[in-house]
Amino acid sequence: MEAMDLTAEQLEEIEHQRSCSSATRRVTSPGIEELIYTPLPILDQGFIRVVDYMGNDGSIVQAARVSYGTGTRKTRNDEALIRFLMRHQHTTPFEMCEIKLHVKLPLFVARQWIRHRTASVNEYSARYSKLDNEFYIPSPEHLAAQSTSNRQGREQITLSGDEAAEVLGILKTDSTRNYANYEYMLDTEGKQGLARELARMNLPANVYTQWYWKIDLHNLFHFIKLRNDSHAQYEIQAYARCMNDITRAWVPAAWKAFDDYVSNAASLSAAAIKLLNRKLLGEQVTFENSGLTKREWIELLMIFEL
Amino acid sequence: MEAMDLTAEQLEEIEHQRSCSSATRRVTSPGIEELIYTPLPILDQGFIRVVDYMGNDGSIVQAARVSYGTGTRKTRNDEALIRFLMRHQHTTPFEMCEIKLHVKLPLFVARQWIRHRTASVNEYSARYSKLDNEFYIPSPEHLAAQSTSNRQGREQITLSGDEAAEVLGILKTDSTRNYANYEYMLDTEGKQGLARELARMNLPANVYTQWYWKIDLHNLFHFIKLRNDSHAQYEIQAYARCMNDITRAWVPAAWKAFDDYVSNAASLSAAAIKLLNRKLLGEQVTFENSGLTKREWIELLMIFEL
Amino acid sequence: MEAMDLTAEQLEEIEHQRSCSSATRRVTSPGIEELIYTPLPILDQGFIRVVDYMGNDGSIVQAARVSYGTGTRKTRNDEALIRFLMRHQHTTPFEMCEIKLHVKLPLFVARQWIRHRTASVNEYSARYSKLDNEFYIPSPEHLAAQSTSNRQGREQITLSGDEAAEVLGILKTDSTRNYANYEYMLDTEGKQGLARELARMNLPANVYTQWYWKIDLHNLFHFIKLRNDSHAQYEIQAYARCMNDITRAWVPAAWKAFDDYVSNAASLSAAAIKLLNRKLLGEQVTFENSGLTKREWIELLMIFEL
Amino acid sequence: MEAMDLTAEQLEEIEHQRSCSSATRRVTSPGIEELIYTPLPILDQGFIRVVDYMGNDGSIVQAARVSYGTGTRKTRNDEALIRFLMRHQHTTPFEMCEIKLHVKLPLFVARQWIRHRTASVNEYSARYSKLDNEFYIPSPEHLAAQSTSNRQGREQITLSGDEAAEVLGILKTDSTRNYANYEYMLDTEGKQGLARELARMNLPANVYTQWYWKIDLHNLFHFIKLRNDSHAQYEIQAYARCMNDITRAWVPAAWKAFDDYVSNAASLSAAAIKLLNRKLLGEQVTFENSGLTKREWIELLMIFEL
Repeated sequence: MEAMDLTAEQLEEIEHQRSCSSATRRVTSPGIEELIYTPLPILDQGFIRVVDYMGNDGSIVQAARVSYGTGTRKTRNDEALIRFLMRHQHTTPFEMCEIKLHVKLPLFVARQWIRHRTASVNEYSARYSKLDNEFYIPSPEHLAAQSTSNRQGREQITLSGDEAAEVLGILKTDSTRNYANYEYMLDTEGKQGLARELARMNLPANVYTQWYWKIDLHNLFHFIKLRNDSHAQYEIQAYARCMNDITRAWVPAAWKAFDDYVSNAASLSAAAIKLLNRKLLGEQVTFENSGLTKREWIELLMIFEL
Repeated sequence: MEAMDLTAEQLEEIEHQRSCSSATRRVTSPGIEELIYTPLPILDQGFIRVVDYMGNDGSIVQAARVSYGTGTRKTRNDEALIRFLMRHQHTTPFEMCEIKLHVKLPLFVARQWIRHRTASVNEYSARYSKLDNEFYIPSPEHLAAQSTSNRQGREQITLSGDEAAEVLGILKTDSTRNYANYEYMLDTEGKQGLARELARMNLPANVYTQWYWKIDLHNLFHFIKLRNDSHAQYEIQAYARCMNDITRAWVPAAWKAFDDYVSNAASLSAAAIKLLNRKLLGEQVTFENSGLTKREWIELLMIFEL
Repeated sequence: MEAMDLTAEQLEEIEHQRSCSSATRRVTSPGIEELIYTPLPILDQGFIRVVDYMGNDGSIVQAARVSYGTGTRKTRNDEALIRFLMRHQHTTPFEMCEIKLHVKLPLFVARQWIRHRTASVNEYSARYSKLDNEFYIPSPEHLAAQSTSNRQGREQITLSGDEAAEVLGILKTDSTRNYANYEYMLDTEGKQGLARELARMNLPANVYTQWYWKIDLHNLFHFIKLRNDSHAQYEIQAYARCMNDITRAWVPAAWKAFDDYVSNAASLSAAAIKLLNRKLLGEQVTFENSGLTKREWIELLMIFEL
Repeated sequence: MEAMDLTAEQLEEIEHQRSCSSATRRVTSPGIEELIYTPLPILDQGFIRVVDYMGNDGSIVQAARVSYGTGTRKTRNDEALIRFLMRHQHTTPFEMCEIKLHVKLPLFVARQWIRHRTASVNEYSARYSKLDNEFYIPSPEHLAAQSTSNRQGREQITLSGDEAAEVLGILKTDSTRNYANYEYMLDTEGKQGLARELARMNLPANVYTQWYWKIDLHNLFHFIKLRNDSHAQYEIQAYARCMNDITRAWVPAAWKAFDDYVSNAASLSAAAIKLLNRKLLGEQVTFENSGLTKREWIELLMIFEL
């Protein structure tokens, strides 16, 4: 069970936002209006909340056609066009929808996330304000062992009960102590007090930060594809999965096309295509006669019944 | 007087869009709701019409503060913060507002415009559809002579009546003929008909094209600064001026800060600062003792009473 | 047969560049040193010439490993790493190589090309200088008819001899006339002379322009994938094919990985994977029981022996 | 005094790189060839070392002119053109030069740095490899107190001797302990060992990381302008200052223009220009009759003799 600790004031602000309604001539998306402003809990104290959006499925069609109207009159045609655009990587119309999120996330997740350059970001400033005493402590079932087969990953199996307890103890103790020292260094009671921009360097990478993050739909899909993926670190996957849900609510037709043609698609190399065709023509194919590397062969077996 | 030739169907589509109103929980901007969808005429047949927007002045403040609420409760504080951000080039909060325009513009203007890479574009495809018989013909008062002092510019003075009439005649005749030949090459009456993607190469650069163009407020300000400028070609200035007006209606506080600190600001070199200080301290300064190049001296005289 | 018309002065400049040799501590690529500065002819008067480059295959490995050395000591390991990076879309190390091209190309090709925003461009300015009398006139075998099945494409079949001759006549006549009028409008003999920035609007879209274009290897591969493709217009394909050859000479290991895993790869949707697996398991699959749309079925048949 | 701890193997690699020399037809820059590969020390254990570059001053001119030759024949004209381009913000020719750096820097500096999106980055992966036991510990003279007048900055005055000693003690102790616990959690001696991607979250933000970073000259100038500035945090200023020196060695003419027209330039608002003109015309101007805010008035006094 996950829980965010929002202050009464923050909850009231959010409630206030949700209670406001304005008339607009813009197109709207009912699915995302439903969840706008509400913090969707992620990890132990993180969240994503939609704070604004622009466009809906019709906007993609409208831009692709450079039309005068909204172009949402024949839903079935619109969906077919969206699927065609997605299948053939005509990506620019998907840039015509935009979303803005308020995200609370551990610093080490923020460091992976920021590698996506095609977005706008405003992060809470630890030069300007003091950070809160909030640190990500994994739940025991996510305390995975280092993978021995894959240098970059973690094992499916988690640490044993004792080792897990010890690790959790370390993480909590070190976070608590380092935060206490952070506060102590800042303190001006009877001393000068270290500059915030320096004191923060004592905080470990599981400290929570926050940002406003704005991105267009095409680049959001790209983010989701890369991060809602078994090779991504579990913690950023959790955020990407939430974004995947948000996107489904926002632009259902575009999301469906993405899910079919990108999320669950596979890219086959020239060699893999040739191999599959040999098999389809009745030939017996084995790793030995495949011409693939061991790793490529295994990757192919995970997709096809060879 | 300028006039766009919209078809009855197009006008009806626009009227339909403007008549729709939805409830939204998002923030709105009354100024831009007023003009949304309406084509604002530019040049002889061009236009800009706002087709969507995201955010208002409050969104800039909200992002700068990474706040839970909308942050528009104390208008005066918000304005001061926006002015501070603009003055100190804290540009990222301005990226948090987004606008989408439908633009009709001559091809040679489109070629200058597209050099701004930080925007999303969907252009009407001349591979997929036939272009309309619409060409930009300048009004006589914009038929400027080539500048002799500035290789890149045009003179303030326009061509004489006779020369102007001749030029207009050439532009009209060549456009008309080339378009007729374009249609003839496409024609399949008793022949195969050339591919659209090839036939279009016969059309001169004053042909009108259209696109959907989406950009964030920071990059829009940058576009306006560069193009709503006396060094820009008159034709693209006309579009930039219109965007300047749109922006003023959309985000009045941000626009005012932009107007004061960017649009009408001047950048002074180290040498120019030193020179001004000599003058302020009572020294007589002349071009000869200025240490500036001739051109820099002249540029300075256009700003300051030396 | 293709031919560029370079002036004696231009040829001498190029010869001069090629004859210079400097010592450098930077890594080099022998393949691209061989062809640097030489204009590679494209279409009737266009060309690409490499004017600078940075990095080689080793640079990709070096960046992926964030290493202190050049990392090219064990060629076989380096190649395996490059192939791994390409296969798994770890694209950032490929951004560490950079190339700069001088390109001469028809304006309508330039308009498609510039849609790739992740590059740096300096184009010959028709505001500042007069354009040359150079227009792209297709060879008869490239005068394709409009496709009737694919709205965006051209047919494989070309225009008949008579129709082709007529089209070529139109293109030549209109180019010649419009250029003569362009020169006439510019002329200051006994009149003021129209500003260059205005006069150029009379030139049709087959006029040649030139630019310097700089891009990193990752984005170059993306360009090649999209434009060295049967769906791209023949004229831009010709340029992309040349870039493909240049890249092979420059970074042979990266190019080979690109060729195997991207250029000649295919993306299979979730539905297509399921269908292939049914077939691999012995089931009879037909369009009727495939669950695919007609177009998807046809696209699949072009890849696999179903 | 600063000192980097490079291993014998690393030093040998660097020595090897510097000893290699190849012939190239590309343009070179003698100033940067001199310092290439050598680590330039920054802070207590950080460095920047140039690992590759493309272009020199002549490349800017060549691109601006879209010329066939190298365009470096008349040095004085080239410098004047470069200065003109810089003064008038014709920024694209400056994008035609590129540089690649290997940087070792504290994590909290990396977080500020990465906000510049127009660059390519490959960072040392803490998912794939164990991080070294290297932490930034400021020298006592950089242990600044929190500013009371400027929420974002630090005071000029540093902490008193006792307080400084205590802060340094905390930083060292917490780094040491957290790193020991990091190693302990990773350890597989008699236990499973936590995944690297999780264990690293225990490391505080003064841990050193490394990356390869590639950027074009225009964007490098922008980085230097923003970060080699008194408002930037001291630690990132140290890196920006080093880059400023590198750039001066690499492209001396472009750097000089940048220094005159950007680095040491000032932007004056419309109101400030009006005020200066009143003063230049002999009027007495004071804060009270200036029409400026207090902060604007102070900022102006820092530049001009009012």
